[in-house]
Amino acid sequence: VSDRLVIALDAMGGDRAPEVVIDGAEIARERFPNISFLMFGDQPRLEPLVQAHPKLAAVTEYRHTTEVVSGEDKPSIALRSARQSSMRLAINSVRDGDASCVVSAGNTGALMAIAKFVLKTLPGIHRPAITTYYPTMRGESCMLDLGANVQCDAENLVQFAVMGEVFARNVLGVKNPSIGILNVGAENLKGNEAVRKASIMLKESTLPIKFHGFIEGDDIGAGVVDVVVTDGFTGNIALKTYEGTAKMFGVFLKRALSESFMSKFGAWLASSALQKFKMQVDPRLYNGAMFLGLNGICIKSHGGTDALGFSNAIHVAVEMITHSFNEAIKEDYAQLSGHDKTMQEAVGS
Amino acid sequence: VSDRLVIALDAMGGDRAPEVVIDGAEIARERFPNISFLMFGDQPRLEPLVQAHPKLAAVTEYRHTTEVVSGEDKPSIALRSARQSSMRLAINSVRDGDASCVVSAGNTGALMAIAKFVLKTLPGIHRPAITTYYPTMRGESCMLDLGANVQCDAENLVQFAVMGEVFARNVLGVKNPSIGILNVGAENLKGNEAVRKASIMLKESTLPIKFHGFIEGDDIGAGVVDVVVTDGFTGNIALKTYEGTAKMFGVFLKRALSESFMSKFGAWLASSALQKFKMQVDPRLYNGAMFLGLNGICIKSHGGTDALGFSNAIHVAVEMITHSFNEAIKEDYAQLSGHDKTMQEAVGS
Repeated sequence: VSDRLVIALDAMGGDRAPEVVIDGAEIARERFPNISFLMFGDQPRLEPLVQAHPKLAAVTEYRHTTEVVSGEDKPSIALRSARQSSMRLAINSVRDGDASCVVSAGNTGALMAIAKFVLKTLPGIHRPAITTYYPTMRGESCMLDLGANVQCDAENLVQFAVMGEVFARNVLGVKNPSIGILNVGAENLKGNEAVRKASIMLKESTLPIKFHGFIEGDDIGAGVVDVVVTDGFTGNIALKTYEGTAKMFGVFLKRALSESFMSKFGAWLASSALQKFKMQVDPRLYNGAMFLGLNGICIKSHGGTDALGFSNAIHVAVEMITHSFNEAIKEDYAQLSGHDKTMQEAVGS
Repeated sequence: VSDRLVIALDAMGGDRAPEVVIDGAEIARERFPNISFLMFGDQPRLEPLVQAHPKLAAVTEYRHTTEVVSGEDKPSIALRSARQSSMRLAINSVRDGDASCVVSAGNTGALMAIAKFVLKTLPGIHRPAITTYYPTMRGESCMLDLGANVQCDAENLVQFAVMGEVFARNVLGVKNPSIGILNVGAENLKGNEAVRKASIMLKESTLPIKFHGFIEGDDIGAGVVDVVVTDGFTGNIALKTYEGTAKMFGVFLKRALSESFMSKFGAWLASSALQKFKMQVDPRLYNGAMFLGLNGICIKSHGGTDALGFSNAIHVAVEMITHSFNEAIKEDYAQLSGHDKTMQEAVGS
């Protein structure tokens, strides 16, 4: 297990754990032959499930624990008391260098609180943020924050802009990513104080980043910018609205196509195209939210995803390690934050 | 023009005014034979366009003015200085009883500021809200506020809940509408202070309304509740994200179906089903945001809509008048607000 990439899995987190975690790990193993797993959880329960996949069993080590953080646990309580939980121990293993990253489908708030406490934030970053990428009409974009910070000031938003820029460049592979701040209108006077001030700070800074200005909700799906910056309250609601609308659209389409013999036959003829279309917006292929700004890589899977979805969260983790994301963010961030005075104040360096 | 329903039109508001306004009025006239129009704007420009539709010309009276509120005007400036604008005069005509309602595709902020100043709010309502209805997996729901109030406290949200309930019952025809507050999670501890406090107020009140609790962004498209309550910042972004995602989905589907001969042929066979599907999510059929809580009916059309979309904004106005919406909201609101102490405090009556 020497030149292998070790991934810590919180095997007990998520609605259908540990089954979905183990089946997801098996799919990811097929995709990335060089990964191995540290699996945290109830070993007597995990082992027979893992043994069903001999090749997975060969690259899995167990770390037994019976304590579990539940979906209902308050983050502060989970942080203080669940010290032997599968989630906590998995995060510890990243801090201790036993694993390169951690993937969990457990309680988001608890995962963020514990990861922040155990791994600490990167230099100059006050608050970590949650991001993910998603399909748009123009390709893929990312949005942050998605819920780590319910209330944000202008300085937080500016830090998110910088972290998002580094993410889009290093993980999404966009050469010169454009940044937009989510608002209720494009005009300077629109919105609350935080977005107005953040916009002025980004406009006035001499940072080498492409600041587009304000964008609106419909610009998310249009892919007007590569990085959408917003507070965690609005971002969480916007991303879930996006997901829910896509789901609704899919249901409407399915209903319509199953209405008559003619439409069913037409749908059958177009089935390969419809399949491709479905793949394009399949939320499982975009599962995996990244915690940015931490001294270690931590990926949150949707709690309700299936094995394919969970495997994609592992995929995201592999991508971030392969692209040395945290080294890149540290370097770029230091360079950017040293760039001008406004930014030095904003990033507190 | 005696027993006719008179609608005041701001003929100069919107991206493609006055053409879209006039063509939209013609479509609405065909749908509702008993309506007539007071058309505010540059009469020499309007008249030849209206004359192209002789039946429309027969039910149209002009109120000439050359002043126009532009999309870039600051609401406070428009309120103070644009006193002879088509928007202002159209709103005045509702106050003066010359028209039953006003429809404008102009500057939202200016329209709200002027309408609030000229028409005043209904008794017990501190702040008017913008709402609209939209298709969900379960039917139709409405959301408020969509941008009139960027920052809201718990009392505002409770007032929106009551106004939304009355709207859903009287305009959407839902017998016992359920109300949800938009949040980043369903648990009591989630979110900011305003949503937490509003949720407690609604739970503790003995109001005869069906309060569901918190909902998340993906519950919007799922239609989990009939009335989604949120602040104007989040609501504006959520609704536009919904619209943008539906648009993106449509573009993806079109691209996929035009990929091969087979998929094109399949789409042709299923074209009647696809057409029905398209209708179901056509944003033009849901165009028309209602200003609730004002002493007069004021409908805002999307600035960029076409004639069909504008005609639907007129449709919404007709619905609200036909259902005596403002009388209903006044009665229900007085009844509800007298119902218990918490509510009396919240609604300030």
